[in-house]
Amino acid sequence: MGGAIGVDVGGTKCLGVVLDRDDAVIAEHRVATPASGPSLVAAVSEVVAALRPSAAGQVPVGVGVPGLVDHSGMLRFAPHLRAVTDFALRDELLAGPLAGVPLVVDNDATCAVWAEHRLGAARGASHVLMATLGTGIGGGLILDGRLQRGSHGFAGEIGHVVVDPQGPQCPCGRQGCWERYASGSGLGRMAREAAEAGVAPRVVELAGGDPEEVRGEHLTVAAAEGDQEAREVMARFAWWVALGLANLAAVLDPELIVLGGGMIEAGPVLLEPTSASFHSLLEGAAHRPAVPLVAAQLGARAGAIGAALLARSAPAAG
Amino acid sequence: MGGAIGVDVGGTKCLGVVLDRDDAVIAEHRVATPASGPSLVAAVSEVVAALRPSAAGQVPVGVGVPGLVDHSGMLRFAPHLRAVTDFALRDELLAGPLAGVPLVVDNDATCAVWAEHRLGAARGASHVLMATLGTGIGGGLILDGRLQRGSHGFAGEIGHVVVDPQGPQCPCGRQGCWERYASGSGLGRMAREAAEAGVAPRVVELAGGDPEEVRGEHLTVAAAEGDQEAREVMARFAWWVALGLANLAAVLDPELIVLGGGMIEAGPVLLEPTSASFHSLLEGAAHRPAVPLVAAQLGARAGAIGAALLARSAPAAG
Repeated sequence: MGGAIGVDVGGTKCLGVVLDRDDAVIAEHRVATPASGPSLVAAVSEVVAALRPSAAGQVPVGVGVPGLVDHSGMLRFAPHLRAVTDFALRDELLAGPLAGVPLVVDNDATCAVWAEHRLGAARGASHVLMATLGTGIGGGLILDGRLQRGSHGFAGEIGHVVVDPQGPQCPCGRQGCWERYASGSGLGRMAREAAEAGVAPRVVELAGGDPEEVRGEHLTVAAAEGDQEAREVMARFAWWVALGLANLAAVLDPELIVLGGGMIEAGPVLLEPTSASFHSLLEGAAHRPAVPLVAAQLGARAGAIGAALLARSAPAAG
Repeated sequence: MGGAIGVDVGGTKCLGVVLDRDDAVIAEHRVATPASGPSLVAAVSEVVAALRPSAAGQVPVGVGVPGLVDHSGMLRFAPHLRAVTDFALRDELLAGPLAGVPLVVDNDATCAVWAEHRLGAARGASHVLMATLGTGIGGGLILDGRLQRGSHGFAGEIGHVVVDPQGPQCPCGRQGCWERYASGSGLGRMAREAAEAGVAPRVVELAGGDPEEVRGEHLTVAAAEGDQEAREVMARFAWWVALGLANLAAVLDPELIVLGGGMIEAGPVLLEPTSASFHSLLEGAAHRPAVPLVAAQLGARAGAIGAALLARSAPAAG
């Protein structure tokens, strides 16, 4: 198989990669994620144009975007791209800068799980759930070895499982979605609550002394240093991550759960308490095989790599 | 294809049916569900023995049981059959009364969704979620036209998605599982709470005047009569049913949701408010095709019929 370009449209940045014929990443480029549909077309085109010199000839392009992406490559609705609804991203790219290019537009976490399945932490596994913990939470599913997109392409919106109907308002319009607790936004909120309550002095110190400036990263750093108060907040956060994973494991019975997205850079300080809580929360845990939770091996590039892998199956010159 | 016997082990009764070669139910028999593994073997055997004269010769047998049933037909764990854990039901049946019989043991709701897919409300649909609302809640999944059992056979434990970590204790060991709200037990609890608060006089009247004697059926009858207070409780119950279905639709993106189990006998008085709440709770509902909620067509027999259908694919003389 030849080379391919993949672009992952995240909540804050668009990351593009070039894969060579052996699936190695040989170039990458990133730009900020814009807020509107037309400027998203421009941003994706800019990334592709920047990467094209590194690719051998007219290679296929894959684009991963968050939220509800239908089978035609239209972005129907994304809580973290609220200005872009019912936008025919694939058609707009083909009508303009990517005319004649074999092109796939799919959900970002669907791309990511495919990359981990083909090249990363889920190689050889037939039943895989991937949760990408970033600004929000995305989900990708492989069941019986097959990538699952659902009836309309919308499967895997795992961040929007309501886990507390009285919980915080979610950008999706409801209250208490899992991603309000278990995403980067959730960790930031828990860290600020601890800071404002005066129970996380080291975290506040890392944020320059202002509790309102505390972000999730400050908590992660303090926890990694061994700060006890920070570890307690991290354990509470990990419990929420585990709760949502246990919910999904009850429904899907995966053999493996892969955790990706920016949050995973926290490493064992997050993964270890999450695994412990997950085991205690899984229905019938004492009567079933353990379900390993593992970190994504392709890191922040998983979505872009997966988009490139899926692009190879794009119809020629759409 | 020849005839087959199916037995559905429910929380309170074991219902068996005989299907003829044209999939018509030509006999049925029921006994109470016992509490232990060995007595479950005896009960299933009794049902099969009672039905055998109606079947043509040595027909295959399928058995559906609630909870975590592995690929070998072992019942690992079921919140509503707590005394039967890690019990090798298929092996025990084959070692005794069903020696030499082609035999399948599977999850009850997995059987039910297969029956609705082959013969009932989900004919022609490729992505189907079935929720059986009874004593607890069971779930069956068809994705891309394929029955999904998950990695170990445990997929579809949809009743044990936690929707409120501070909620009521669940027999599974955790708190706030969806089935604490949206099952027959959940309706009974909401009805009693309303009765004890003095806001459901007609419901109490139907229960013989004692609020503690109120059950879900009394509420259903009062709501069907048009009693306003009962309808308000039913709307609250329907909201919880819809919440869990919207959670699952976000993950699975079904084209159709089939509601089965005893609760569905309530009819439109439950289905209509559930559909309305479901639409308002589904992520991005304004930007996606509607997902119809429909009642199971095979009613209380769906699990037994599905077990019989699956039995036809049993290995000969196990």
